[in-house]
Amino acid sequence: MELEDLILVSVDDHVVEPPTVFDGRLPAKYAELAPKLVRRDDGTDAWVYGQEVVQNVALNAVAGRPPEEYGFEPTSFEQIRPGCWDIDERIKDMDANGVLGSLNFPSFPQFCGQLFARTPDKDVALAMIRAYNDWHIEEWCGTHPGRMIPCALPVIWDAELMAAEVRRVAAMGCHAVTFSENPAKLGWPSLHSNTWDPFWAACEEVGTVVCMHIGSSSQMVITAEDAPIDVMITLTPMNIVQAAGDLIWSPVLRKFPNLRIALSEGGIGWIPYFLERIDYVYHHHKAWTFQNFGDQLPSQVFKERIITCFIDDNFGVESRHHLNLDNITWECDYPHSDSTWPHAPELAMKHFAGVPDAEINKITHENAMRIFQYDPFAHVPREQATAGALRARAAGHDVGLRTTRK
Amino acid sequence: MELEDLILVSVDDHVVEPPTVFDGRLPAKYAELAPKLVRRDDGTDAWVYGQEVVQNVALNAVAGRPPEEYGFEPTSFEQIRPGCWDIDERIKDMDANGVLGSLNFPSFPQFCGQLFARTPDKDVALAMIRAYNDWHIEEWCGTHPGRMIPCALPVIWDAELMAAEVRRVAAMGCHAVTFSENPAKLGWPSLHSNTWDPFWAACEEVGTVVCMHIGSSSQMVITAEDAPIDVMITLTPMNIVQAAGDLIWSPVLRKFPNLRIALSEGGIGWIPYFLERIDYVYHHHKAWTFQNFGDQLPSQVFKERIITCFIDDNFGVESRHHLNLDNITWECDYPHSDSTWPHAPELAMKHFAGVPDAEINKITHENAMRIFQYDPFAHVPREQATAGALRARAAGHDVGLRTTRK
Repeated sequence: MELEDLILVSVDDHVVEPPTVFDGRLPAKYAELAPKLVRRDDGTDAWVYGQEVVQNVALNAVAGRPPEEYGFEPTSFEQIRPGCWDIDERIKDMDANGVLGSLNFPSFPQFCGQLFARTPDKDVALAMIRAYNDWHIEEWCGTHPGRMIPCALPVIWDAELMAAEVRRVAAMGCHAVTFSENPAKLGWPSLHSNTWDPFWAACEEVGTVVCMHIGSSSQMVITAEDAPIDVMITLTPMNIVQAAGDLIWSPVLRKFPNLRIALSEGGIGWIPYFLERIDYVYHHHKAWTFQNFGDQLPSQVFKERIITCFIDDNFGVESRHHLNLDNITWECDYPHSDSTWPHAPELAMKHFAGVPDAEINKITHENAMRIFQYDPFAHVPREQATAGALRARAAGHDVGLRTTRK
Repeated sequence: MELEDLILVSVDDHVVEPPTVFDGRLPAKYAELAPKLVRRDDGTDAWVYGQEVVQNVALNAVAGRPPEEYGFEPTSFEQIRPGCWDIDERIKDMDANGVLGSLNFPSFPQFCGQLFARTPDKDVALAMIRAYNDWHIEEWCGTHPGRMIPCALPVIWDAELMAAEVRRVAAMGCHAVTFSENPAKLGWPSLHSNTWDPFWAACEEVGTVVCMHIGSSSQMVITAEDAPIDVMITLTPMNIVQAAGDLIWSPVLRKFPNLRIALSEGGIGWIPYFLERIDYVYHHHKAWTFQNFGDQLPSQVFKERIITCFIDDNFGVESRHHLNLDNITWECDYPHSDSTWPHAPELAMKHFAGVPDAEINKITHENAMRIFQYDPFAHVPREQATAGALRARAAGHDVGLRTTRK
């Protein structure tokens, strides 16, 4: 495989929502209640919704920023790349990075739409979620057909409404929904509760993948108050192992045998060890804990049903035959600080040295296409979909580092 | 390598302390204050010390118990194998398991001697720690020379006294001390504080290894209140990754360049992924987090200074060349529930299929001997130290499962 021939589909990127999300998408009676992006006295931009003010944190939109300028301070839209929030600019940034397709997670509403879940009037909240999802599917993903994989917000406060929204957006072509890696940490029932069953059932029915992104339990790993930030940055993705353990031992996957769950930004190099550990615990303790996986092992359930992905994980790729090759996907994490933009193809090639082409193709795009029911080639001819062709099209697009300090 | 020829040294086992620990080991004025093992009305045994009552949890002494009878209920000494607390019986159990050497962690005082740290009169507390360490070194480890690797309790409430005790026991041949995987979670200063510097300096000076055992921050991984116990059992050892992250980014290893730290019961299969992750964070974020490892990488510091070990970790052994082969050790975890007793040699052979003898020898005993300054062959001729020779000596010793229910 040559770098030019890679076809890259990223299953984990992020949209910084533009001010127009709700324009013309709400019932007239709710239009005035929509979240509004406002310029604050300090020059930063923030979403204002009811009594809530949500700032955009710089570290979540640093693509193209010199690393010396990474940080947690709030930002204005002028300080971030237009590709963070402008779909036309985003496509150019994807082209320049050789990336064909992209699944985007939300920013200001949080991964599970917690902002809307806190709305006292739940009719209003539901209208906001639907408007957001309509915008996401029609505008963010529909403007450049074949380039974006839609991913819906969940109606997390009501599992029946949640199921209905999953079915509604599936009819619009959306087969991914965000959820929490641990809803119990957000104050909702845990994965061990049957509360979510209507939601799981709907996802299973319409073939929608439940995406649990790292950090979606809002539980950062803080080892000590005086620990440097590097500790948290190192451990946050590794925290997903807790979600994996919680999920495998929960009834969810056994009760809904066709449900699939993605561990977004979860990495893959830790998984072979985890699978060996979970089978060891099963063999060693089931006699008194009464776990029952029938004729399967916990590791088999994981391999069949859990969608994995990685940004930069040489060891994980080297260990890929301990995973299910059909469920490994790739991601870019644009525009977050762990992103490999605009050098994704170069880093991918480093991972893929010695990997057969058929395996590379599964990991880079074929698995994502099948799993998310995403067919870019209906819109983009295959020969125009390669990293080489996309980059050629983006020739002249500025991808240099730009200072954002004033 | 044949099974019979393995020489197995376990760097992580546990002693359930016998009632005689403090007999004749305290200054006369404190003798009456010693912890006492008492039979309770419900038939279980517990240590009583001042106002505190410490029960022995069954799951921590289940070697030889049928898995159906594992559980968290308190036990009496009659319900656990005598090898848990009787040194002569322990040696027989080791022989029957083909294990030459063993490093034992404390039970009732907790990993960091928290029980004594809570004593209001710190002169009393110090006397208890010293008496405990004297018993551990002289009786538990001294009765059968060459079989036990001593490991001291720390004087955790005072870093200067802590340093003095490290030096005192080193003079008695003890070159391991238990410590917490995260003292901040126990209410003491974190690894990022300079409070511990006298302790680190003493350990470095006398070549004592600081052992951070899983669970020694008393932070079990509870994903949700209604999560089954299997989740916690699966995740507890994986939690050590937090200690590893905390440690590498702390000043400790850079400030004390000869200090070595063991991640006891930490497993090894997760480490290659972690090392790649930590270097990625360093490269990607150091420009704004100001971390500085000089001409090294964080992964190199880990490899040189962190002692790793595993019970049952096929993937880890397969991935051993991503670790430092000179710092990988082996453990049995007798008599805890994850222990491989009495089948350790058979399981070890499963791991070691295809591994060159020289590498097996490093992992099974040579590394542990060097790192802990432990020389069994001064007391046990090499030809009598093999799994085959030890088992032959133990012929007839009953290692069958015994019910402990009444």
